[in-house]
Amino acid sequence: MIQTILLKNRPEGKPSVSDFEFVKDESDVTIKDGELLLETTYVSVDPYLRGRMSDAKSYVPPFELNKPVHSGVVAKVLASKNDNFKEGDFVSGMLDWKTKQISNGEGLLKVDGSKAPLSTYLGVLGMTGLTAYLGLNQIGKPKAGETLVVSGAAGAVGSVVGQIGKILGLNVIGIAGTDEKVEMLKSKFGFDAAINYNTTKDMKAAIAAAAPNGVDIYFDNVGGPISDAVLFNINKFARMIICGAISVYNNTELPQSISVQPFLVKNSALMQGFIVSNYADKFPEAMKELSTWLAEGKLTYTETVVNGFENIPSAFIDLFDGKNKGKMIVKI
Amino acid sequence: MIQTILLKNRPEGKPSVSDFEFVKDESDVTIKDGELLLETTYVSVDPYLRGRMSDAKSYVPPFELNKPVHSGVVAKVLASKNDNFKEGDFVSGMLDWKTKQISNGEGLLKVDGSKAPLSTYLGVLGMTGLTAYLGLNQIGKPKAGETLVVSGAAGAVGSVVGQIGKILGLNVIGIAGTDEKVEMLKSKFGFDAAINYNTTKDMKAAIAAAAPNGVDIYFDNVGGPISDAVLFNINKFARMIICGAISVYNNTELPQSISVQPFLVKNSALMQGFIVSNYADKFPEAMKELSTWLAEGKLTYTETVVNGFENIPSAFIDLFDGKNKGKMIVKI
Repeated sequence: MIQTILLKNRPEGKPSVSDFEFVKDESDVTIKDGELLLETTYVSVDPYLRGRMSDAKSYVPPFELNKPVHSGVVAKVLASKNDNFKEGDFVSGMLDWKTKQISNGEGLLKVDGSKAPLSTYLGVLGMTGLTAYLGLNQIGKPKAGETLVVSGAAGAVGSVVGQIGKILGLNVIGIAGTDEKVEMLKSKFGFDAAINYNTTKDMKAAIAAAAPNGVDIYFDNVGGPISDAVLFNINKFARMIICGAISVYNNTELPQSISVQPFLVKNSALMQGFIVSNYADKFPEAMKELSTWLAEGKLTYTETVVNGFENIPSAFIDLFDGKNKGKMIVKI
Repeated sequence: MIQTILLKNRPEGKPSVSDFEFVKDESDVTIKDGELLLETTYVSVDPYLRGRMSDAKSYVPPFELNKPVHSGVVAKVLASKNDNFKEGDFVSGMLDWKTKQISNGEGLLKVDGSKAPLSTYLGVLGMTGLTAYLGLNQIGKPKAGETLVVSGAAGAVGSVVGQIGKILGLNVIGIAGTDEKVEMLKSKFGFDAAINYNTTKDMKAAIAAAAPNGVDIYFDNVGGPISDAVLFNINKFARMIICGAISVYNNTELPQSISVQPFLVKNSALMQGFIVSNYADKFPEAMKELSTWLAEGKLTYTETVVNGFENIPSAFIDLFDGKNKGKMIVKI
């Protein structure tokens, strides 16, 4: 028996459980040459999935109604007629919200539960970690001794960016929204400095004070006024990784900011939008380095694990009430 | 006898002749080993020099008071004790506003008056052409068939950018401020389309109409609302060369625009500030290609030539009244 979760309605505002539909299929499953039968072990639920449930134009097409939702999944190979995978292997990839499913192996990575907990392949060793690693390295091109500012620093991506920055010898400054997060950035994740944007009146001056040599790299998850304040502090040849603009995503009016162009000309600086899927050819090398750092204890992470396939929609919805700490994962 | 033009005062508003001082030196000039004696032939006067006459922080230090102004110059070698240059050679470089001067040869390029008029080494074969060529190629990375939009398209740089775009097989759209300029872009410089921003109500729609396949490369000389309108039309992986932001340079308040970050994330797009001096290692290859195109008649240009060393300051000031057509040059 296979259970599947379909998208039934496009949510309006906060999603609800009734936007999803559970269906069961009792028919037998047989695989053809080249295929695998997978059993889902862990499912990642992420805020970005909300965007895909709408039909607004974006860089990825929206989920189709009455089709399975999909996200990052770790699964076990139950049977294989594909030379690249054998029974008992674990894999990660973008897969459907199903208890079991057939794959042709495309886009799947083999993962090793003896080297790191399987759930980490959805977080620090998954899209989260890859986004942090590849955004920082491919666009940020960090050099030891430089100064890195991270916004949304206490988030799943931001906290990994900051830790990688420290491993690479950068001076790392985080921006987050509560004193508790600011404290965690410094004590748990090793940031050199952290700023609470909710209690800081002059962000421009606070960043200048934390970055006396100026800002060489800015990993931007938020956009808006925080990013404006960073711009005033950039150095010549600064690199700005635009990974998200969550502070303005929900605006109904077109958001306004200071003009970035004069800052870019004056500093020969770069701003580039980053989507991890554009860098798939770099995933193996990134995974290798992230796994090593995790095994060596140089990278740490926080996750919230919910049990049960039937709880995937509610775990997803709980994200919007901040019920998770760090990465939210459902164990099947 | 050597004449020199010094910066006497930092201009307030539009510069005046009294901001400059002419001095004469009757003493003999002797050169040491490694040095050259140069006689100035052509002097380039450019709007960007106005910025260097102020002491506001910029990417280059301001001119010092009571020191010679300098700009792009073509000069003849009168005497040489430097193995790289011989008497009778012509060179171009950033040199002082002097009738004669000594140089150690650093930063000088040999130029050949038999291949192209010497004045072109200050325009289409000088900083103007290098800025157009290197900005478009190094940041824009054009591929035949793509769509290029150029703002400030009728300017010295913009008109060369558009012509290079056509040589490279791009669909080229220019933005300029008068119907006469728009006509010139199409008839003289071969642009596929041109838009008068002063008479067009909906720039976003006008660019969409001229670029039905979207915008892959934007060569931005102006910033401000014109650049905002381009952003709505960019394609995935668009590259935006931020070469100038003249529309906002004179603002006394910090200029506001729409937030660029969501556009960059959504399109994995890039914006990068461009200063030609960062690409000095690429000058020889760029000069070679520009010279070939000029000789083959693939590149054309417009220039205004004023006679006499004593007229350098007034020629510079005339720029701000638009008395030039194309590149403004003083012949000594």
